[in-house]
Amino acid sequence: MKKQIGSGILLFLGNDECGINYEDNTYPYRQDSTFLYYFDLSYPGLADVIDIEEDKEIIFGDELSIDHIVWMGTQPTLSEKSHQVGVETILPSRKLNSYLEKAAHKGQRIHYLPPYRAEYRLKYIELLGLFPNDQRGSVNFIRSVINQRNYKTPEEIVEIEKACDVTADMHIAAMKYIRPGMKEYEVVSLLQSVATAAGCSLSFPIIATINGQTLHNHYHGNTIREGELFLIDAGAETEMGYAGDMSSTIPVGKKFTTLQKEIYDIQVASHLTAVNALKPGIPYMEIYDSVCKVIFNGLKELGFTRGDADEAIRAGAHALFMPHGLGYMMGLDVHDMENLGELWVGYNGLPKSTQFGRKSVRLARPLEPGFVLTVEPGIYFIPELIELWKSHQKFTKFIHYNKVETYKGFGGIRNEEDYLITETGARRLGKKIPLTTEEVEALRQ
Amino acid sequence: MKKQIGSGILLFLGNDECGINYEDNTYPYRQDSTFLYYFDLSYPGLADVIDIEEDKEIIFGDELSIDHIVWMGTQPTLSEKSHQVGVETILPSRKLNSYLEKAAHKGQRIHYLPPYRAEYRLKYIELLGLFPNDQRGSVNFIRSVINQRNYKTPEEIVEIEKACDVTADMHIAAMKYIRPGMKEYEVVSLLQSVATAAGCSLSFPIIATINGQTLHNHYHGNTIREGELFLIDAGAETEMGYAGDMSSTIPVGKKFTTLQKEIYDIQVASHLTAVNALKPGIPYMEIYDSVCKVIFNGLKELGFTRGDADEAIRAGAHALFMPHGLGYMMGLDVHDMENLGELWVGYNGLPKSTQFGRKSVRLARPLEPGFVLTVEPGIYFIPELIELWKSHQKFTKFIHYNKVETYKGFGGIRNEEDYLITETGARRLGKKIPLTTEEVEALRQ
Repeated sequence: MKKQIGSGILLFLGNDECGINYEDNTYPYRQDSTFLYYFDLSYPGLADVIDIEEDKEIIFGDELSIDHIVWMGTQPTLSEKSHQVGVETILPSRKLNSYLEKAAHKGQRIHYLPPYRAEYRLKYIELLGLFPNDQRGSVNFIRSVINQRNYKTPEEIVEIEKACDVTADMHIAAMKYIRPGMKEYEVVSLLQSVATAAGCSLSFPIIATINGQTLHNHYHGNTIREGELFLIDAGAETEMGYAGDMSSTIPVGKKFTTLQKEIYDIQVASHLTAVNALKPGIPYMEIYDSVCKVIFNGLKELGFTRGDADEAIRAGAHALFMPHGLGYMMGLDVHDMENLGELWVGYNGLPKSTQFGRKSVRLARPLEPGFVLTVEPGIYFIPELIELWKSHQKFTKFIHYNKVETYKGFGGIRNEEDYLITETGARRLGKKIPLTTEEVEALRQ
Repeated sequence: MKKQIGSGILLFLGNDECGINYEDNTYPYRQDSTFLYYFDLSYPGLADVIDIEEDKEIIFGDELSIDHIVWMGTQPTLSEKSHQVGVETILPSRKLNSYLEKAAHKGQRIHYLPPYRAEYRLKYIELLGLFPNDQRGSVNFIRSVINQRNYKTPEEIVEIEKACDVTADMHIAAMKYIRPGMKEYEVVSLLQSVATAAGCSLSFPIIATINGQTLHNHYHGNTIREGELFLIDAGAETEMGYAGDMSSTIPVGKKFTTLQKEIYDIQVASHLTAVNALKPGIPYMEIYDSVCKVIFNGLKELGFTRGDADEAIRAGAHALFMPHGLGYMMGLDVHDMENLGELWVGYNGLPKSTQFGRKSVRLARPLEPGFVLTVEPGIYFIPELIELWKSHQKFTKFIHYNKVETYKGFGGIRNEEDYLITETGARRLGKKIPLTTEEVEALRQ
């Protein structure tokens, strides 16, 4: 870090509690991931400062009062907790402001990370005198955090694999459990309970729906019916904070219908194309393009699309069926370091497309050993998008709207696995969940 | 409101989404309760302005883009949603700032509510030019909201009773289910699933623990063992946002031990003392004092305390066993309007005590018809508090530490019900959950 940043003060803010409908009714506490990565202290009300020149580290925070202990239970003192993670100097949080002022006065530059919660924006006003529009973060600091966190250590991989195993258990349990007549929330309860029983929380809000065509659907009130497709996108988070993230799509009955199988097989083919391409050196955007091509050509055979695949994909016509990217880095965040900016995490500073579909590609850069990422192509029939594009006569050269329209109630298909890029290729993290129609139907019997 | 506030502009901010570890990985969305109360629009990114003089109402917010619909699914337009709740004028959110500036320029006063999330503090800086230390809210506005929300309408009572019925179902299911060898989180899963199956969420994070002496214990990793007490404090929240809140304490085996029954019976006696005293006109602080007296005298008979109960309670000695208050207003928030300030909600502006124990009394004012409140005395043996007080030789005139110390592993007992104050007395809201030792043991057979 010293090499990349030079000199000055590194400011790391920890997350505070967030009130749901008043200050003391709080959401489950989650520490900021960069704070976890460097300091492994998962408590609200902390900040940490590293003085690069003096090679000094200070935690700013306050000890618990007896009121806290009566309400929240006993725990180690802040001083004990800090010593455990190797930080010797602890100062009360009210001293942070004057500490930074003094440093600035001495001419030290204060490096900080971009805010993603309102509490950070507020603190940066107070601590740095910067208003939200000017709180862009310090580029060298951001890049040096990303350069560490993007390359997972063996210890991190063990932890991510733990999260992935629990994630696979969640999916396998739900894929066996779903029956016609159930409510979607019953599946959510099961997924949640498998995670909890393994000592995990969720790495993101569960998607478990008969409306897989809505990409981030968090409504769970529908009754599940025979003949529908059921899409699950869910992941566990270990106690240390590492994420797993997988998706699966099953028929609500025992078998896929012929129509479902036709589309599902294309998705699996695109998925395996991606998996087989994973290795150091290949840009993930290139794999995205191959995947889109498999989908476009597969759909062409079924009469949904027409024309040249490469041309269609350059134009963005494939995004009618796959409006999202192929995957992203995964680690302490399910979209790892999304708060530090996709541009550096997934593009290494190169410019991003603004085209619908391609703009949602979060990871484009050449893969390197130590990267952990998700692979998750999908095929969706999104009624609103189909209507909108058709009404604008968009890409009629590539899309047979008359055929596509007949699939408006089809839903969506996505399968997702997590991979580690190795020196020679890639390794799936966590147990395998059923992927092909044969594997899925065998589990559903 | 017009009468109480006079003139000017009323500014209501709605809640935004809050990112867990980056902006787009959000906690489950919850609208601000006052915003729900007046506008019934449960979507992020809204603000509402009422111009008192012109009797005009404007919603500030933005329509969804196709990207939103692809990711989050279709929904009515903001304009449709606003018309449904009777607001005709909708302006883009970026216009709120200039609207308020213009109003201020015309000499109109802008009334606002106190912030409880960082996002509000940030917005008040931008919209009102007020920094957090000066964001105290507008007293007349605060009081007039409280004066409406404190008196529940028949429609609200129906909704609260729905929440209470589901809450009772959650408790009864868990009280039957708990067995030695289970993990606490299995009970949490069950409570959650009963709420979900009834179309409800949780009104606050579940407490389900063998360590009931820790008042707000959210750790659920312990194994439940025969002979222990298990304390549950949990409540459902209806889709409209109304809360239920009950507590129950059961023996992990089929019966209470003799020691447990002795303490439990005192808690029940204090609980019934409170319930029987509920009626219009009586200050809730007076009921709190009666409850503390029942507990102090009950414990005196068992040899934990000594001396005059009234004197001990004035001095605060009872708070060793019951460090919290007796209950609070309940409605759209489980601690209703805690964000608007306990001083107005529960004390009608009268000063609060700073004494340990009594300072946690949230509701003190004379009761009135239409108030909905919780009744929840408790008796706890909190090792850290016992040690602290003993080491300071605190209240030795009233407390037999030698006896109290032998109960350090006892845990805690709390039972809680929800009541509506009527013209003549009070009515329990929701199904009855087992309360007395006989009722609890009958359920545990």
